[in-house]
Amino acid sequence: MKKLINDPADVVTESVEGFGLAHPDVVHVRTDPLYVTRAGGPRTGKVGLVSGGGSGHEPLHAGFVGVGMLDAAVPGAMFTSPVPDAITPALQAADGGAGVVAIVKNYTGDVMNFELGAEIAEAEGVTVRTVLVNDDVAVEDSTWTAGRRGVAGTLCVEKIAGAAAERGDDLDAVVAVAEKVVANVRSMGVALTACTVPHAGRPSFDLADDEIEIGIGIHGEPGRHRVPMAPADAVTEQLLTPVVEDLRLGDGESVLLFVNGMGGTPLSELYVVYRHARRLLEERGVTVTRSLVGSYVTSLEMQGASVTVLRLDDELTALWDAPVRTTALHW
Amino acid sequence: MKKLINDPADVVTESVEGFGLAHPDVVHVRTDPLYVTRAGGPRTGKVGLVSGGGSGHEPLHAGFVGVGMLDAAVPGAMFTSPVPDAITPALQAADGGAGVVAIVKNYTGDVMNFELGAEIAEAEGVTVRTVLVNDDVAVEDSTWTAGRRGVAGTLCVEKIAGAAAERGDDLDAVVAVAEKVVANVRSMGVALTACTVPHAGRPSFDLADDEIEIGIGIHGEPGRHRVPMAPADAVTEQLLTPVVEDLRLGDGESVLLFVNGMGGTPLSELYVVYRHARRLLEERGVTVTRSLVGSYVTSLEMQGASVTVLRLDDELTALWDAPVRTTALHW
Repeated sequence: MKKLINDPADVVTESVEGFGLAHPDVVHVRTDPLYVTRAGGPRTGKVGLVSGGGSGHEPLHAGFVGVGMLDAAVPGAMFTSPVPDAITPALQAADGGAGVVAIVKNYTGDVMNFELGAEIAEAEGVTVRTVLVNDDVAVEDSTWTAGRRGVAGTLCVEKIAGAAAERGDDLDAVVAVAEKVVANVRSMGVALTACTVPHAGRPSFDLADDEIEIGIGIHGEPGRHRVPMAPADAVTEQLLTPVVEDLRLGDGESVLLFVNGMGGTPLSELYVVYRHARRLLEERGVTVTRSLVGSYVTSLEMQGASVTVLRLDDELTALWDAPVRTTALHW
Repeated sequence: MKKLINDPADVVTESVEGFGLAHPDVVHVRTDPLYVTRAGGPRTGKVGLVSGGGSGHEPLHAGFVGVGMLDAAVPGAMFTSPVPDAITPALQAADGGAGVVAIVKNYTGDVMNFELGAEIAEAEGVTVRTVLVNDDVAVEDSTWTAGRRGVAGTLCVEKIAGAAAERGDDLDAVVAVAEKVVANVRSMGVALTACTVPHAGRPSFDLADDEIEIGIGIHGEPGRHRVPMAPADAVTEQLLTPVVEDLRLGDGESVLLFVNGMGGTPLSELYVVYRHARRLLEERGVTVTRSLVGSYVTSLEMQGASVTVLRLDDELTALWDAPVRTTALHW
């Protein structure tokens, strides 16, 4: 294993410490327990937004803390849910008196720990509502999931709910718009290589030199099938088609097209995927009105990509376009 | 070779086409010859800024086209200089009547082709000045270079010269501030793995499973030495020390610290490197007043990182802070 780390037990803490030192104008890092808050603390009267999950998917979620997106993020150990002891203070730190929405990717550990963390925060007087994200169309149930997994579509939920909270929507309204995004966003990914979790020290699965896995999860959970390496356009079609069909996207609709890198994929390849995904959508009469291309929801150094499509209407478009000032998304 | 590409001969064009489709509000892509201009064309009376070089280092340079940075970028084939036939029209397209500055990384092919491209543009009435970037302290002379190589420090030159041009500095002043950045920026990198150029189809060099290369170039050119894999803090020290010593940084100075990923390195690892590099600078009495962490000047899917330090004064700090709206840098 070759990684730019020290002791594998310290990588998350050291990384988040570095993150805090680099961006004091955007975030504030608390250690013991470890969580990240928006610089300047919660805004009084604004609904707070919190997310979190296992580390190894950076910039998700700490990179999305800032104005117009999250108030706090809770990084767990690598590919391991954060514990309630960290979740509860993060929920409390995000509370500006108008309640807090926890955005949770649908993994059993995250769901359970956020539920416990929220219960304790509620007992201490914070109103918490939870929104589960389950955008991955690849498989029902998986290694650590009952139902569908939450993957790159989480970024869309956090961005749009964050904008709603920032403009002053109340708790019910922020939950409603977050649920609306969940209902209209779908993703599917492909792995060309596995990744290595530092404390494990070896690749999380084996993939032959000429083989890729369609429908992979962001922790390397099994997908739909393994197929021989194929041209990017053919791979892109295998990712986009199930997404479009699951969304029942029709002629005349508008979407956000988000091509996400898994961490080890060159940006140039993501734009090759984007180009063909966009053409395939256009062939179906679907207009791409918003785009995002980059490595935002990753699996350490895994090579691969995912395609996310979000059905847009005027409301979601305006919230997507609203200003955001985080370290990973900024406009 | 597993890559999300179609025919290796088409990867650059398809990727840049996708880039243009995704960001019509920021850039405009011209094909045949291939180059990228700022959306809306050159601003009359503003000094134009152009850069370019072999592809495979994305988001450099096309990702830095936009308000406050480059007016045009010329992507060559993978790891291959663009030809004068593409450079000349890019220089012309960037000319708002106040002359154009070409920012060229110090590789023999780029230097020669930009010289030829500039000569032809000059014959057509465009005043062109060239600034060479040679920030890599690792080695003098290299596979494709006489003198030092130009690497991640190029981003600093483009950002700061771009801000100077944007605020209305004339041609001499933009060249002067670009040269000032070149004089005060130094970098050094490390490779944990090689990368594979699509048309070659195999890794550009061999590196043993327990070995890393200190001082690597962004095309995998030889560095200073190969050493056994070591903890991130020890590797960071081997990168930072030569940079600091070459800059003759002293107690009480202020710097920008830029930790750059080579393409295949998780963001979490870059922050581990950043954390220790910052500590080492502080131990020398150097204050980090500006920071950048991410994969901005890459070598396809290579795993590794580079550390760049730019000595700051009030002028350079203000120009670094000035607004920038490109697809890869935005504030």
